Amino acid sequence: MKMNPLRISQFMNSNSDKFYSSYKLSDALADDKFSESAKMPETVTEEKQNEGPAETPKESRNIVLTGFGGLKTLKVLKKPEPKPAEGEVLISVKACGLNFVDLMVRQGVLEHPPKTPLTIGFECAGDVEAVGENTEGFAVNDRVIGFINYGAWGEKVTVQAKYVYKMPSNMSYQDGSALPMNYLAAYIMLFDIGNLKKGMTVFSHNIGGGVGNALGQLCKTVEDVNLYGTASEHKHEAVKDNVTNVFNRTSDYCQEVRKLSPEGVDIVLDCMCGEDTNKGISLLKPMGKYILYGSSNIVTGETKSFFSFAKSWWQVDKVSPIKLYDENKTISGFQLRNLAFQQNQDAYIRGVMNELFKLYTQGKIHPVIDSSYAFEDIADAMMKMHDRKNIGKLILDPTMEPKPKVQSAPSVEGASPPDQNKDDKEENKDGVVNGEQQ
Amino acid sequence: MKMNPLRISQFMNSNSDKFYSSYKLSDALADDKFSESAKMPETVTEEKQNEGPAETPKESRNIVLTGFGGLKTLKVLKKPEPKPAEGEVLISVKACGLNFVDLMVRQGVLEHPPKTPLTIGFECAGDVEAVGENTEGFAVNDRVIGFINYGAWGEKVTVQAKYVYKMPSNMSYQDGSALPMNYLAAYIMLFDIGNLKKGMTVFSHNIGGGVGNALGQLCKTVEDVNLYGTASEHKHEAVKDNVTNVFNRTSDYCQEVRKLSPEGVDIVLDCMCGEDTNKGISLLKPMGKYILYGSSNIVTGETKSFFSFAKSWWQVDKVSPIKLYDENKTISGFQLRNLAFQQNQDAYIRGVMNELFKLYTQGKIHPVIDSSYAFEDIADAMMKMHDRKNIGKLILDPTMEPKPKVQSAPSVEGASPPDQNKDDKEENKDGVVNGEQQ
Repeated sequence: MKMNPLRISQFMNSNSDKFYSSYKLSDALADDKFSESAKMPETVTEEKQNEGPAETPKESRNIVLTGFGGLKTLKVLKKPEPKPAEGEVLISVKACGLNFVDLMVRQGVLEHPPKTPLTIGFECAGDVEAVGENTEGFAVNDRVIGFINYGAWGEKVTVQAKYVYKMPSNMSYQDGSALPMNYLAAYIMLFDIGNLKKGMTVFSHNIGGGVGNALGQLCKTVEDVNLYGTASEHKHEAVKDNVTNVFNRTSDYCQEVRKLSPEGVDIVLDCMCGEDTNKGISLLKPMGKYILYGSSNIVTGETKSFFSFAKSWWQVDKVSPIKLYDENKTISGFQLRNLAFQQNQDAYIRGVMNELFKLYTQGKIHPVIDSSYAFEDIADAMMKMHDRKNIGKLILDPTMEPKPKVQSAPSVEGASPPDQNKDDKEENKDGVVNGEQQ
Repeated sequence: MKMNPLRISQFMNSNSDKFYSSYKLSDALADDKFSESAKMPETVTEEKQNEGPAETPKESRNIVLTGFGGLKTLKVLKKPEPKPAEGEVLISVKACGLNFVDLMVRQGVLEHPPKTPLTIGFECAGDVEAVGENTEGFAVNDRVIGFINYGAWGEKVTVQAKYVYKMPSNMSYQDGSALPMNYLAAYIMLFDIGNLKKGMTVFSHNIGGGVGNALGQLCKTVEDVNLYGTASEHKHEAVKDNVTNVFNRTSDYCQEVRKLSPEGVDIVLDCMCGEDTNKGISLLKPMGKYILYGSSNIVTGETKSFFSFAKSWWQVDKVSPIKLYDENKTISGFQLRNLAFQQNQDAYIRGVMNELFKLYTQGKIHPVIDSSYAFEDIADAMMKMHDRKNIGKLILDPTMEPKPKVQSAPSVEGASPPDQNKDDKEENKDGVVNGEQQ
């Protein structure tokens, strides 16, 4: 692996009391926050004393978000290998899943952004390396999936055992790391909220995305289900076997759906919100269910202020229960991470994961993997997702060698000079995204 | 059967072009509308010519709503026996179901009240007496249930074949007539909207009512389901075997539920609307579903104007999809008659009815019948329901003899002088009901 650290800086994450050591950090690109953090060497010394001066502490390379904004905010940094606390499992990570929401985390456009610096990422798969005290159900070398509220993108990651799942023996690490965010969401929405049954018709935005792929496979597990969806035109060929009909993202999808199903559809899955909410509700047949699960609304206005993004996402009409009563309709909201990490539904989620494992073992679901990237190539991976060029899941693999850089840059992060252009491009398009597309 | 017509008047229903002949009509109690209708003898003569002068036409005794208001608006009248049109079945009725919504129909407090005069009632059971042209699936003497949007309360009733269901051989007419309004609603809400699963907890208002009884039995078909409900105190003993916990109607039910299930419940079934909607939504655990299925809100204000009733029922906060997204919650509206008769979901409803027949045959559901009444005693039946004195279903039986009246009144309708007191009492309490409790 190519290692060319120019400067090692160490700083403390004031929220988590965890220590990071950065490598490959370009001074020119270090933002204020990061520099500020770097002014805290005392605690690091203290840690070194604890570790003992003769012993070189084990380290973990992590993808760390150092502030909010473009690609330059992400650094691959070394931190001391964490130890699993009581109820935790230490995973030696082999694959991590990238999701659209990670781009939004980076931009700081989530309603409750995390405090930086921190290791980001929500899903990974690997081997159990150690088990905390009083932690039942796992042993060293178990092949597992970890689901975590930030912190998945590291070589060594601790995850609460209640969000760790033993993989079926025939499941690859890549497939495992692709399950939590996309397949849990798709399964719960289709079966537990939507109550998908034989003969039903489903409409979903962004059918070429991670959740969309999962929806396609899961819909096929039920007899005679029609799935309509929207996708960028260049994805139509790739998704056509997965859906009954695919419409262009920019088409009048309501009209298209009504041509095919004049009576409406049974389930609408909406990650757009805003004015698409009313459209989605209008597409429902009686007994139909509209499920809002996030937003990928892109505002192309001049301002980049957070509140102007927020406006576009929050501008959604409230719904009268009386209207639902008159029309026999249902509206639901679904936010997987809230469910798991704020609302503590770990037992429920484990049950769903077990159902997914059964379907995987039966060959009924199988994540479509687009490509894998080294941690150091996170910028390339994010750009591909941002430009909607991926067909299937993008995987971050900590064991992979980074791609050789064309220019001999003084730094190897994603935020090196050639990447700066990407950053600008991305901020214009992506910096105005709010809500969340899981 | 006691027959003592004092005056026969005939009038035409201008909406349906059907002819009614009234008997046992008290002049003193005939309201303006009815008297007006009675001034149209010409059309009746015309019909008689068609029938031929030597032939006495077959007649059907029906419970007819002659206007909106108290009990006096209901008359038992004779009309010519209807002939089944194409796609219709003529049923010789043995039992009809009474529902709370019938009281509201009578008061004219539904959003879209029917035009009077008309035969009311939504459900009946009996034998097929004739089948219309090009009507498949039924033969004379089939024992059937009829589901109809007004018109069920007659000796002879025509029902569209798509809303006629052959009863299992072990089902009584009473049980059959008790299924459509209560059991269809309860089944659809629990299983198709609520997606009831093992271990869930359900809360329902008015657990001692018709839908409540059905809910109790249907919840027991699923393992480890808890059912909480509210009921008038005098019904607690009767419903206790059907529910896990019952609270007084006037209690702080939110507090009571939270004592038992601090994390909330999975399904809330609300027939109250208004401020109970917010309370219901607040009781949901993550992934919980709130279902509004009608209203039995009673406003005890001074005015009886329709718009003041309406205010109480429509005063319900709109719900933000974003709130549902944050909280992982669902809200649904359910209106069975809209679904069946405005939204043409007859095939879906037939599927549900078949599921109910299976459960009945397996002994898992069985309507609780409170008592049966002759058509002429409709006022007594409605008063019992209004006063919440019934435990289970009230049945109207066209073959029953009416109860002997204590006073020798000049008329035998429900609106005779002793009933007039009931009327006043009822208007004070019941005349201010809006929405619908199915």
